[in-house]
Amino acid sequence: MTIQLHCFGESGNAYKAALPLELSGLDWEPVKVDFFNGAARTPEYAAMNVMAEAPVLVDGDLTLSQSGVIQMYITEKTGKFGGATPEEAREVMRWCFWDNHKMSSQCGTLRFLMNFLPEEKRPAEVIGFLGGRVKAAFKTLDTALEGRDWLVGDGPTNADFSCCGYLFYPEPFTFTRADWPNIDRWLSNIEALPGWKHPYDLMPGHPSDRGL
Amino acid sequence: MTIQLHCFGESGNAYKAALPLELSGLDWEPVKVDFFNGAARTPEYAAMNVMAEAPVLVDGDLTLSQSGVIQMYITEKTGKFGGATPEEAREVMRWCFWDNHKMSSQCGTLRFLMNFLPEEKRPAEVIGFLGGRVKAAFKTLDTALEGRDWLVGDGPTNADFSCCGYLFYPEPFTFTRADWPNIDRWLSNIEALPGWKHPYDLMPGHPSDRGL
Repeated sequence: MTIQLHCFGESGNAYKAALPLELSGLDWEPVKVDFFNGAARTPEYAAMNVMAEAPVLVDGDLTLSQSGVIQMYITEKTGKFGGATPEEAREVMRWCFWDNHKMSSQCGTLRFLMNFLPEEKRPAEVIGFLGGRVKAAFKTLDTALEGRDWLVGDGPTNADFSCCGYLFYPEPFTFTRADWPNIDRWLSNIEALPGWKHPYDLMPGHPSDRGL
Repeated sequence: MTIQLHCFGESGNAYKAALPLELSGLDWEPVKVDFFNGAARTPEYAAMNVMAEAPVLVDGDLTLSQSGVIQMYITEKTGKFGGATPEEAREVMRWCFWDNHKMSSQCGTLRFLMNFLPEEKRPAEVIGFLGGRVKAAFKTLDTALEGRDWLVGDGPTNADFSCCGYLFYPEPFTFTRADWPNIDRWLSNIEALPGWKHPYDLMPGHPSDRGL
């Protein structure tokens, strides 16, 4: 049975699940969530995910949300991307939690405010504040990648797929690859993985659908 | 060997690890991180945790950070709080990720801005924005707790210990228990657990140390 991932192209959180699904070789297909028209706020969606978020994975009778949990499920099914030892597995989870707490959460919000709100509604003080917060996160990530090809061990793991979630998008949110040489090199490693796809090529939905 | 948890009383993220340590019956002791005087930003601390955050657990040769990973380690060592079945285990992780992404991260920041910054430096627009974000998180949590004693299964799990991280603190950050009857009832269940302690009783460090 084909796994379905409810997702949309603009969502870096969905990309964090879609990318390892694609690279794992599992049979999956994206199902577009029309997020910007409120599709995640309907009673039907709430019945599937009380958190009113994408992504949601449906595999037969199983429904899962939270990109980190979907990544763990892909690892459970395929043995891939979870780290090669118990120590590596903990280190993978450490970066997945850090990403959710300090990085993707703030990158996603900042990118939304700077690009997907009408210009006259963009809150300058909030944008400045979040800009400082994401800069601190970029610095942590860049430092951790010094002299390393991947965040954990010798190959790509969920740690990489989580932390890169928002970093391939073209919309400005104060992230410039050239400013962070270790992040830049690491993103090139991810792009070079066989089967890698950009979020807008992997999932349906693009800002141009909304005239942006 | 006694497990050490580098932590401080004001940190809800540290409480998320300290509370299950205490309730698990493991032999542990808190080690105060003098966070507000920059102790987490020293080279020595960076060598222990590049993320420059508390909590950090040290158990012999093992060093772990991220409250979610420390919770998983407590479950690994004791069999407690991780969910009774694979389905429950996934559901526990789902709430732990949601908490890190949508709740603790924003509650912690908002509480810091509203209480631990000098009054003249508190950014009103950011505080208003985060107030809206945490309200949405409280609504999700309150909805999920409708008719339930615990977030997952029939007893306390890491899901509860994660989501309650900031909710026992007295400092104002737009959270009032009476506004959220299901959350209020659930917090009472947590307080009634044998051995439960308030964060300021469980970990060293209190705002009064800084004259607040």
